Amino acid sequence: MKKSSKFLTLVAVPLLFVFFITSCNKKAETKETVAESTFNLTIAKAEIEAANKEFMAFFAAGDSVELANLYTQDAKFMNTGAPAITGRRNIQSALSGIMKSGISRAVLITVEVWGTEDLITEEGEISLFVEEAEVFQGKYIVLWKKDDGKWKLFRDIFNSNLPAE
Amino acid sequence: MKKSSKFLTLVAVPLLFVFFITSCNKKAETKETVAESTFNLTIAKAEIEAANKEFMAFFAAGDSVELANLYTQDAKFMNTGAPAITGRRNIQSALSGIMKSGISRAVLITVEVWGTEDLITEEGEISLFVEEAEVFQGKYIVLWKKDDGKWKLFRDIFNSNLPAE
Repeated sequence: MKKSSKFLTLVAVPLLFVFFITSCNKKAETKETVAESTFNLTIAKAEIEAANKEFMAFFAAGDSVELANLYTQDAKFMNTGAPAITGRRNIQSALSGIMKSGISRAVLITVEVWGTEDLITEEGEISLFVEEAEVFQGKYIVLWKKDDGKWKLFRDIFNSNLPAE
Repeated sequence: MKKSSKFLTLVAVPLLFVFFITSCNKKAETKETVAESTFNLTIAKAEIEAANKEFMAFFAAGDSVELANLYTQDAKFMNTGAPAITGRRNIQSALSGIMKSGISRAVLITVEVWGTEDLITEEGEISLFVEEAEVFQGKYIVLWKKDDGKWKLFRDIFNSNLPAE
Protein backbone atom coordinates (compact mmCIF):
# COMPACT_ATOMS: atom_id res chain seq x y z
CA MET A 1 0.00 0.00 0.00
CA LYS A 2 1.17 3.52 -0.76
CA LYS A 3 1.27 6.20 1.94
CA SER A 4 -1.76 7.95 0.38
CA SER A 5 -3.98 4.87 0.49
CA LYS A 6 -2.88 4.08 4.04
CA PHE A 7 -3.84 7.65 4.96
CA LEU A 8 -7.28 7.17 3.43
CA THR A 9 -7.90 3.84 5.15
CA LEU A 10 -6.59 4.67 8.59
CA VAL A 11 -7.27 8.39 9.01
CA ALA A 12 -9.54 10.00 6.40
CA VAL A 13 -12.32 7.40 6.28
CA PRO A 14 -12.68 7.03 10.07
CA LEU A 15 -12.61 10.84 10.35
CA LEU A 16 -15.39 11.10 7.80
CA PHE A 17 -17.45 8.70 9.90
CA VAL A 18 -16.90 10.84 12.98
CA PHE A 19 -17.72 14.02 11.04
CA PHE A 20 -21.00 12.66 9.68
CA ILE A 21 -22.12 11.08 12.92
CA THR A 22 -21.46 14.39 14.69
CA SER A 23 -23.30 16.41 12.07
CA CYS A 24 -26.19 13.95 12.19
CA ASN A 25 -26.54 14.41 15.94
CA LYS A 26 -26.26 18.19 15.66
CA LYS A 27 -29.08 18.21 13.12
CA ALA A 28 -31.29 16.22 15.50
CA GLU A 29 -30.46 18.50 18.44
CA THR A 30 -31.25 21.65 16.45
CA LYS A 31 -34.65 20.25 15.47
CA GLU A 32 -35.58 19.57 19.10
CA THR A 33 -34.43 22.99 20.30
CA VAL A 34 -36.51 24.75 17.65
CA ALA A 35 -39.61 22.71 18.54
CA GLU A 36 -39.29 23.61 22.23
CA SER A 37 -38.40 27.28 21.93
CA THR A 38 -41.14 28.46 19.54
CA PHE A 39 -43.69 28.62 22.37
CA ASN A 40 -43.22 30.15 25.80
CA LEU A 41 -46.05 29.76 28.31
CA THR A 42 -44.87 32.68 30.49
CA ILE A 43 -45.05 35.02 27.49
CA ALA A 44 -48.46 33.57 26.54
CA LYS A 45 -49.71 34.22 30.10
CA ALA A 46 -48.63 37.87 29.83
CA GLU A 47 -50.43 38.11 26.46
CA ILE A 48 -53.62 36.68 27.99
CA GLU A 49 -53.38 39.13 30.89
CA ALA A 50 -52.98 41.97 28.39
CA ALA A 51 -56.09 40.75 26.53
CA ASN A 52 -57.98 40.68 29.85
CA LYS A 53 -56.93 44.29 30.49
CA GLU A 54 -58.51 45.22 27.15
CA PHE A 55 -61.63 43.26 28.17
CA MET A 56 -61.88 45.19 31.45
CA ALA A 57 -61.29 48.54 29.71
CA PHE A 58 -64.00 47.95 27.06
CA PHE A 59 -66.37 46.70 29.77
CA ALA A 60 -65.78 49.80 31.94
CA ALA A 61 -66.32 51.97 28.85
CA GLY A 62 -69.65 50.21 28.17
CA ASP A 63 -68.45 49.32 24.66
CA SER A 64 -70.17 46.01 23.86
CA VAL A 65 -69.03 46.11 20.21
CA GLU A 66 -65.30 46.27 21.01
CA LEU A 67 -65.85 43.80 23.87
CA ALA A 68 -67.50 41.30 21.49
CA ASN A 69 -64.62 41.82 19.03
CA LEU A 70 -62.36 40.19 21.64
CA TYR A 71 -64.27 36.93 20.96
CA THR A 72 -63.76 34.75 17.87
CA GLN A 73 -66.57 34.90 15.27
CA ASP A 74 -67.59 31.33 16.29
CA ALA A 75 -67.12 31.80 20.06
CA LYS A 76 -69.44 30.42 22.75
CA PHE A 77 -70.29 32.59 25.74
CA MET A 78 -71.34 29.97 28.30
CA ASN A 79 -73.19 32.37 30.57
CA THR A 80 -74.43 31.17 33.96
CA GLY A 81 -78.19 30.75 34.36
CA ALA A 82 -78.79 30.73 30.59
CA PRO A 83 -78.03 28.47 27.63
CA ALA A 84 -74.73 29.03 25.81
CA ILE A 85 -74.71 31.92 23.34
CA THR A 86 -72.95 31.23 20.03
CA GLY A 87 -71.35 33.73 17.67
CA ARG A 88 -69.90 37.22 18.10
CA ARG A 89 -73.10 39.04 17.16
CA ASN A 90 -75.22 37.19 19.73
CA ILE A 91 -72.47 37.56 22.32
CA GLN A 92 -72.49 41.31 21.73
CA SER A 93 -76.25 41.44 22.45
CA ALA A 94 -75.77 39.38 25.62
CA LEU A 95 -72.90 41.59 26.85
CA SER A 96 -74.91 44.71 26.02
CA GLY A 97 -77.79 43.26 28.08
CA ILE A 98 -75.48 42.61 31.05
CA MET A 99 -74.21 46.20 30.91
CA LYS A 100 -77.76 47.58 30.65
CA SER A 101 -78.72 45.55 33.75
CA GLY A 102 -76.37 47.85 35.68
CA ILE A 103 -73.10 45.89 35.77
CA SER A 104 -70.53 48.62 35.17
CA ARG A 105 -67.22 46.90 35.79
CA ALA A 106 -65.62 43.44 35.55
CA VAL A 107 -62.39 42.44 37.29
CA LEU A 108 -60.57 39.42 35.85
CA ILE A 109 -57.58 37.80 37.51
CA THR A 110 -55.61 35.10 35.68
CA VAL A 111 -54.76 32.20 38.02
CA GLU A 112 -53.02 29.84 35.61
CA VAL A 113 -52.72 29.06 31.89
CA TRP A 114 -51.94 25.88 29.94
CA GLY A 115 -51.66 25.18 26.25
CA THR A 116 -49.86 25.73 23.02
CA GLU A 117 -49.13 28.52 20.55
CA ASP A 118 -52.64 28.23 19.04
CA LEU A 119 -54.84 27.42 22.02
CA ILE A 120 -54.59 28.44 25.68
CA THR A 121 -56.85 27.36 28.53
CA GLU A 122 -56.99 29.95 31.30
CA GLU A 123 -58.29 29.55 34.85
CA GLY A 124 -59.27 32.79 36.53
CA GLU A 125 -61.29 34.68 39.09
CA ILE A 126 -64.04 37.15 38.18
CA SER A 127 -65.84 39.88 40.07
CA LEU A 128 -68.65 42.04 38.73
CA PHE A 129 -69.55 45.44 40.12
CA VAL A 130 -72.50 47.82 40.08
CA GLU A 131 -70.66 51.08 40.67
CA GLU A 132 -68.52 50.25 43.75
CA ALA A 133 -70.61 47.29 45.00
CA GLU A 134 -69.39 43.78 44.18
CA VAL A 135 -72.50 41.92 43.00
CA PHE A 136 -70.89 38.75 41.64
CA GLN A 137 -67.85 36.78 42.74
CA GLY A 138 -66.89 33.70 40.79
CA LYS A 139 -64.37 31.67 38.82
CA TYR A 140 -63.94 30.97 35.15
CA ILE A 141 -62.27 28.92 32.47
CA VAL A 142 -61.60 30.64 29.15
CA LEU A 143 -60.31 28.83 26.08
CA TRP A 144 -58.34 31.35 24.00
CA LYS A 145 -57.67 30.82 20.31
CA LYS A 146 -54.97 32.53 18.25
CA ASP A 147 -56.97 34.36 15.58
CA ASP A 148 -55.00 36.30 12.96
CA GLY A 149 -52.09 36.69 15.41
CA LYS A 150 -54.21 37.83 18.35
CA TRP A 151 -55.59 35.82 21.29
CA LYS A 152 -59.41 35.80 21.23
CA LEU A 153 -61.94 34.24 23.60
CA PHE A 154 -63.24 31.04 22.00
CA ARG A 155 -65.03 29.40 24.94
CA ASP A 156 -65.95 31.39 28.05
CA ILE A 157 -67.58 29.73 31.07
CA PHE A 158 -67.94 31.05 34.62
CA ASN A 159 -70.02 30.44 37.72
CA SER A 160 -70.67 31.96 41.12
CA ASN A 161 -68.79 31.23 44.35
CA LEU A 162 -71.98 31.95 46.27
CA PRO A 163 -75.22 29.94 46.44
CA ALA A 164 -78.16 31.44 44.54
CA GLU A 165 -80.17 33.68 46.88
CA MET B 1 -1.93 4.93 -7.17
CA LYS B 2 -2.75 1.29 -6.58
CA LYS B 3 -6.15 -0.10 -7.56
CA SER B 4 -7.19 -0.33 -3.87
CA SER B 5 -6.51 3.36 -3.19
CA LYS B 6 -8.22 4.39 -6.44
CA PHE B 7 -11.24 2.37 -5.32
CA LEU B 8 -11.25 4.19 -2.00
CA THR B 9 -10.94 7.65 -3.57
CA LEU B 10 -13.36 7.27 -6.45
CA VAL B 11 -15.97 4.82 -5.18
CA ALA B 12 -15.90 4.04 -1.47
CA VAL B 13 -15.54 7.58 -0.08
CA PRO B 14 -18.25 9.16 -2.31
CA LEU B 15 -20.49 6.21 -1.47
CA LEU B 16 -19.94 6.80 2.21
CA PHE B 17 -21.02 10.44 1.72
CA VAL B 18 -24.20 9.32 -0.01
CA PHE B 19 -24.87 6.71 2.66
CA PHE B 20 -24.48 9.18 5.53
CA ILE B 21 -26.43 11.96 3.87
CA THR B 22 -29.26 9.50 3.19
CA SER B 23 -29.20 8.16 6.72
CA CYS B 24 -29.14 11.72 8.09
CA ASN B 25 -32.25 12.64 6.11
CA LYS B 26 -34.00 9.42 7.10
CA LYS B 27 -33.32 10.19 10.74
CA ALA B 28 -34.87 13.65 10.35
CA GLU B 29 -37.90 12.29 8.48
CA THR B 30 -38.52 9.62 11.10
CA LYS B 31 -38.46 12.22 13.87
CA GLU B 32 -41.09 14.35 12.12
CA THR B 33 -43.36 11.41 11.35
CA VAL B 34 -43.23 10.24 14.96
CA ALA B 35 -44.01 13.74 16.26
CA GLU B 36 -47.07 14.07 14.01
CA SER B 37 -48.52 10.59 14.42
CA THR B 38 -48.28 10.16 18.20
CA PHE B 39 -51.39 12.28 18.84
CA ASN B 40 -54.78 11.90 17.23
CA LEU B 41 -57.63 14.16 18.43
CA THR B 42 -60.35 11.75 17.28
CA ILE B 43 -58.80 8.97 19.36
CA ALA B 44 -58.37 11.38 22.30
CA LYS B 45 -62.07 12.32 22.04
CA ALA B 46 -63.04 8.64 22.23
CA GLU B 47 -60.77 8.23 25.28
CA ILE B 48 -62.42 11.23 26.98
CA GLU B 49 -65.87 9.80 26.20
CA ALA B 50 -64.77 6.47 27.71
CA ALA B 51 -63.55 8.31 30.84
CA ASN B 52 -66.95 10.06 31.05
CA LYS B 53 -68.69 6.66 30.87
CA GLU B 54 -66.65 5.59 33.90
CA PHE B 55 -67.63 8.86 35.61
CA MET B 56 -71.33 8.20 34.96
CA ALA B 57 -71.04 4.57 36.12
CA PHE B 58 -69.30 5.47 39.42
CA PHE B 59 -71.81 8.28 39.97
CA ALA B 60 -74.78 5.95 39.41
CA ALA B 61 -73.17 3.42 41.77
CA GLY B 62 -72.84 6.14 44.45
CA ASP B 63 -69.09 5.44 44.65
CA SER B 64 -67.53 8.80 45.56
CA VAL B 65 -64.08 7.24 46.16
CA GLU B 66 -63.76 5.80 42.64
CA LEU B 67 -65.38 8.95 41.23
CA ALA B 68 -62.77 11.13 42.98
CA ASN B 69 -60.02 8.83 41.67
CA LEU B 70 -60.93 10.04 38.16
CA TYR B 71 -59.58 13.47 39.18
CA THR B 72 -55.85 14.28 39.48
CA GLN B 73 -54.50 14.60 43.05
CA ASP B 74 -54.23 18.40 42.53
CA ALA B 75 -57.52 18.85 40.65
CA LYS B 76 -59.94 21.75 41.11
CA PHE B 77 -63.67 21.05 41.18
CA MET B 78 -65.11 24.44 40.28
CA ASN B 79 -68.59 23.74 41.57
CA THR B 80 -71.39 26.23 40.88
CA GLY B 81 -72.66 28.28 43.84
CA ALA B 82 -69.57 27.50 45.95
CA PRO B 83 -65.85 28.34 45.92
CA ALA B 84 -63.57 25.97 44.00
CA ILE B 85 -62.61 22.77 45.83
CA THR B 86 -58.96 21.75 45.52
CA GLY B 87 -57.49 18.25 45.84
CA ARG B 88 -58.86 14.75 45.35
CA ARG B 89 -59.73 14.22 49.02
CA ASN B 90 -61.81 17.41 49.25
CA ILE B 91 -63.41 16.67 45.88
CA GLN B 92 -64.44 13.25 47.18
CA SER B 93 -66.21 14.90 50.16
CA ALA B 94 -67.97 17.35 47.84
CA LEU B 95 -69.10 14.60 45.45
CA SER B 96 -70.26 12.48 48.38
CA GLY B 97 -72.28 15.50 49.61
CA ILE B 98 -73.88 15.93 46.19
CA MET B 99 -74.87 12.24 46.15
CA LYS B 100 -76.26 12.44 49.70
CA SER B 101 -78.37 15.45 48.65
CA GLY B 102 -80.30 13.03 46.43
CA ILE B 103 -78.61 13.39 43.02
CA SER B 104 -78.46 9.81 41.81
CA ARG B 105 -77.34 10.12 38.22
CA ALA B 106 -75.23 12.37 35.98
CA VAL B 107 -75.38 12.41 32.19
CA LEU B 108 -72.36 13.87 30.39
CA ILE B 109 -72.25 14.51 26.65
CA THR B 110 -68.98 15.54 24.99
CA VAL B 111 -69.56 18.34 22.46
CA GLU B 112 -65.97 19.01 21.34
CA VAL B 113 -62.39 18.54 22.44
CA TRP B 114 -59.16 20.44 21.73
CA GLY B 115 -55.60 19.92 22.86
CA THR B 116 -52.51 17.80 22.84
CA GLU B 117 -51.31 14.39 24.01
CA ASP B 118 -50.94 15.69 27.62
CA LEU B 119 -53.81 18.12 28.01
CA ILE B 120 -57.31 18.14 26.52
CA THR B 121 -59.99 20.80 26.95
CA GLU B 122 -63.50 19.37 26.62
CA GLU B 123 -66.77 21.24 26.12
CA GLY B 124 -69.83 19.28 27.18
CA GLU B 125 -73.42 19.17 28.33
CA ILE B 126 -74.45 17.93 31.76
CA SER B 127 -77.73 16.81 33.27
CA LEU B 128 -78.29 15.72 36.88
CA PHE B 129 -81.15 13.52 37.99
CA VAL B 130 -82.96 12.67 41.21
CA GLU B 131 -84.27 9.26 40.26
CA GLU B 132 -85.97 9.94 36.89
CA ALA B 133 -86.44 13.71 37.36
CA GLU B 134 -83.93 16.03 35.70
CA VAL B 135 -83.04 18.61 38.36
CA PHE B 136 -80.09 20.30 36.65
CA GLN B 137 -79.34 21.07 33.03
CA GLY B 138 -76.11 22.82 32.16
CA LYS B 139 -72.85 23.00 30.27
CA TYR B 140 -69.26 22.41 31.28
CA ILE B 141 -65.62 22.76 30.39
CA VAL B 142 -63.26 20.08 31.69
CA LEU B 143 -59.49 20.27 31.38
CA TRP B 144 -58.16 16.70 31.27
CA LYS B 145 -54.55 15.87 32.10
CA LYS B 146 -52.69 12.68 31.12
CA ASP B 147 -51.72 11.19 34.49
CA ASP B 148 -49.70 7.97 34.45
CA GLY B 149 -51.11 7.11 31.01
CA LYS B 150 -54.74 7.82 31.90
CA TRP B 151 -56.87 10.94 31.27
CA LYS B 152 -57.91 12.51 34.58
CA LEU B 153 -60.07 15.55 35.33
CA PHE B 154 -57.74 18.45 36.25
CA ARG B 155 -60.13 21.41 36.11
CA ASP B 156 -63.91 20.92 36.12
CA ILE B 157 -66.30 23.87 35.80
CA PHE B 158 -70.01 23.86 34.97
CA ASN B 159 -73.04 26.09 35.27
CA SER B 160 -76.78 25.98 34.81
CA ASN B 161 -78.72 26.71 31.63
CA LEU B 162 -81.62 27.94 33.77
CA PRO B 163 -81.88 31.07 35.92
CA ALA B 164 -81.72 30.47 39.69
CA GLU B 165 -85.25 29.99 41.08
